[in-house]
Amino acid sequence: MEQSYNSSLLDTAVAELAKLPGIGRKTALRLALHLLRQDEEVAHSLGSAIINMRDNISYCQRCHNISENDTCDICSDKRRDSSIICVVENVKDVLTVESSREFSGLYHVLGGLISPLDGIGPSDLEIDSLVNRVSSENISEVILALSPTIEGDTTNFYIFRKLSSTDVKITVLARGLSIGNELEYTDELTLGRSILNRIPFSAT
Amino acid sequence: MEQSYNSSLLDTAVAELAKLPGIGRKTALRLALHLLRQDEEVAHSLGSAIINMRDNISYCQRCHNISENDTCDICSDKRRDSSIICVVENVKDVLTVESSREFSGLYHVLGGLISPLDGIGPSDLEIDSLVNRVSSENISEVILALSPTIEGDTTNFYIFRKLSSTDVKITVLARGLSIGNELEYTDELTLGRSILNRIPFSAT
Repeated sequence: MEQSYNSSLLDTAVAELAKLPGIGRKTALRLALHLLRQDEEVAHSLGSAIINMRDNISYCQRCHNISENDTCDICSDKRRDSSIICVVENVKDVLTVESSREFSGLYHVLGGLISPLDGIGPSDLEIDSLVNRVSSENISEVILALSPTIEGDTTNFYIFRKLSSTDVKITVLARGLSIGNELEYTDELTLGRSILNRIPFSAT
Repeated sequence: MEQSYNSSLLDTAVAELAKLPGIGRKTALRLALHLLRQDEEVAHSLGSAIINMRDNISYCQRCHNISENDTCDICSDKRRDSSIICVVENVKDVLTVESSREFSGLYHVLGGLISPLDGIGPSDLEIDSLVNRVSSENISEVILALSPTIEGDTTNFYIFRKLSSTDVKITVLARGLSIGNELEYTDELTLGRSILNRIPFSAT
């Protein structure tokens, strides 16, 4: 412990808060002192919400999204197209794709990306269960909606190989200019890819 | 609740985390998903550290700094000059002043500043107990080390009036140029104050 705040209780709370990503010791101390100034109720609600969530949360057995039931709301929604699976890294990305309102199929949450440096291999992710879904459900298309990073591309390639023996259509999200961004501020890799993958102009 | 994450447990944890100062809903979601990816132990340690701290922390009965015992380490340190009290806003400021290594007296933690807009009046702060200390202990000087803001100045003035009937010396921290900062980037109020309060040049 780098610095002591005259109280092992405060020290412990600061050390635990500082383990959270993006929260350093200064911020952790600020948060702890804030909690000390509030009613006891505030610290109790926060502490037990964290413990309850970790202990009792459950996942959809089909797509591995967070869910209250065995099957999540998206998987059990009959209006959605169950022949298309959108593969995403995590639960947050389900919300991100949903917010675009352009996808009405089902999801498959991998729970991470292949990253040898972080010790995350294919067996740590929900890739086998994806392959199972493609062979057992009536799937026509798998959309790989992973981040355009080295880890994302590695995972895309691994899944592509795993599914290559099936006749499912495999697509990835288009990479190109961000809508609303000026050309000047687009990085050269993205711009180069946009030129290679240029599409016919459509006036609609 | 603005957005639902398919799980009331996650919703609750995100809502509670987002109540912390400087943490919005996006960051709260990131923190919650991080905790879900970690071992159960991590969420348990964090949650119980927060609750334990809030329930069991105690304060020094003399200076109101956080302390494991009735009297804090600073107040019970015989090598410190017990005739000088440095008045600070909160526990963090004790550490800040200590880190300057220029003060060897005792502290008095107010627990906030007078701020009518936030509904904080003198009776919400440890001002009466400061006045009691000045009259009952053998105090020669009270240093007001509050932030140079409207709230800090209001509190300085209030304490000054409360202590004006005693013969204790009351000082405030010097305001002037920050050491290492260029003159060009000093704000005009601070620069003006530095000119008014200029001091004889000393070659040491």
